[in-house]
Amino acid sequence: MANKKGFTLWLTGLSGAGKTTLARILASELNGRGVSVEVLDGDEVRTNLSRGLGFSKEDRDINIRRIGFVCRLLSRNGVGAVSAAISPYRAVRDEIRHAIEQDGAEFIEVFVKCPIEVLVARDVKGLYKLALAGEISEFTGVSDPYEEPLTPAVVVETDREPVESSVGKIIHVLEQRGLIPEVVITNRQVIPLSVFEDLRTPNVEFARR
Amino acid sequence: MANKKGFTLWLTGLSGAGKTTLARILASELNGRGVSVEVLDGDEVRTNLSRGLGFSKEDRDINIRRIGFVCRLLSRNGVGAVSAAISPYRAVRDEIRHAIEQDGAEFIEVFVKCPIEVLVARDVKGLYKLALAGEISEFTGVSDPYEEPLTPAVVVETDREPVESSVGKIIHVLEQRGLIPEVVITNRQVIPLSVFEDLRTPNVEFARR
Repeated sequence: MANKKGFTLWLTGLSGAGKTTLARILASELNGRGVSVEVLDGDEVRTNLSRGLGFSKEDRDINIRRIGFVCRLLSRNGVGAVSAAISPYRAVRDEIRHAIEQDGAEFIEVFVKCPIEVLVARDVKGLYKLALAGEISEFTGVSDPYEEPLTPAVVVETDREPVESSVGKIIHVLEQRGLIPEVVITNRQVIPLSVFEDLRTPNVEFARR
Repeated sequence: MANKKGFTLWLTGLSGAGKTTLARILASELNGRGVSVEVLDGDEVRTNLSRGLGFSKEDRDINIRRIGFVCRLLSRNGVGAVSAAISPYRAVRDEIRHAIEQDGAEFIEVFVKCPIEVLVARDVKGLYKLALAGEISEFTGVSDPYEEPLTPAVVVETDREPVESSVGKIIHVLEQRGLIPEVVITNRQVIPLSVFEDLRTPNVEFARR
């Protein structure tokens, strides 16, 4: 199903902050509402679009611009694109926002925030340890800069809130902007959410999720 | 507007054979029918996705795989993707066909055929002259191979038929496969083509175009 208007959900944040997890849950939630969504995961994109690029500022910018280009093509055709790449530099993010908005689609910047101390302590992939030991160079947040968004549409604090809350916040913004239907799809029947709200049954909360 | 089912129109042929021209007219024709279409032009893609790649077999394959990746993302979300890159190697084209079909979208190979003698004589961009003089190396059809499609869905012979005929052939295949509506959209009213056919007026031909 086509969306009313295409959009790009641009998740930005440090490695391990939860961008990919969020993107996958968001995609599943949106698909459940009949919205076409494509996730552009940083690692997957490096395989398919940017093999050979390194992690210098120049190479990072090229990589992010490529993701932005694909998000743009998807968004302007009514698809929801979800980018889950670190995208550390503000200027390139803003450049992509501009291009997407120029095409009449929406760009929604989501700051996936988590303090570096927490990420170092978690260190799911073991990368922070290597970066701190100097065995990986140009590692964002350790030996390479991360420029926080100045005016993100949503901030999710993945060390403080459950993932469901983070997803809920983002979905809420999409609903508010009229980019996704406020409906629940059950057994191929489309039921406007207002029906549940009118009934005021305990199902409402479940339906909202 | 979303399409019933996404598809990739894969135009393949030598430089100057007319791929880009065909792609642009096709996109305009399809947009006129309310079909979402995105053209991936070889030169444009080299700027946005493949800057730095050369024309060795390896680099060409990477470039074509990237175009294929983007076509795949578009097609599986119901968008019509039109690739207008030379794509000289059969194996990579087949690899992309496989990936797109696996996602449930259609891959339609269009051989944009024109004898090299005609292209050398035309030489719109002056590239054949340079290639024949050895000033450009790895030039498809001159100093680099071009593997013709073995079973293309459509063959258009751009030295023998007007561009309208070529476009018509391709559109016909899309209609036959039920990928685009057989309708004419006039003043935002959607009129099934069968209405015109039933009337059997001279407008039918015009409407078909």
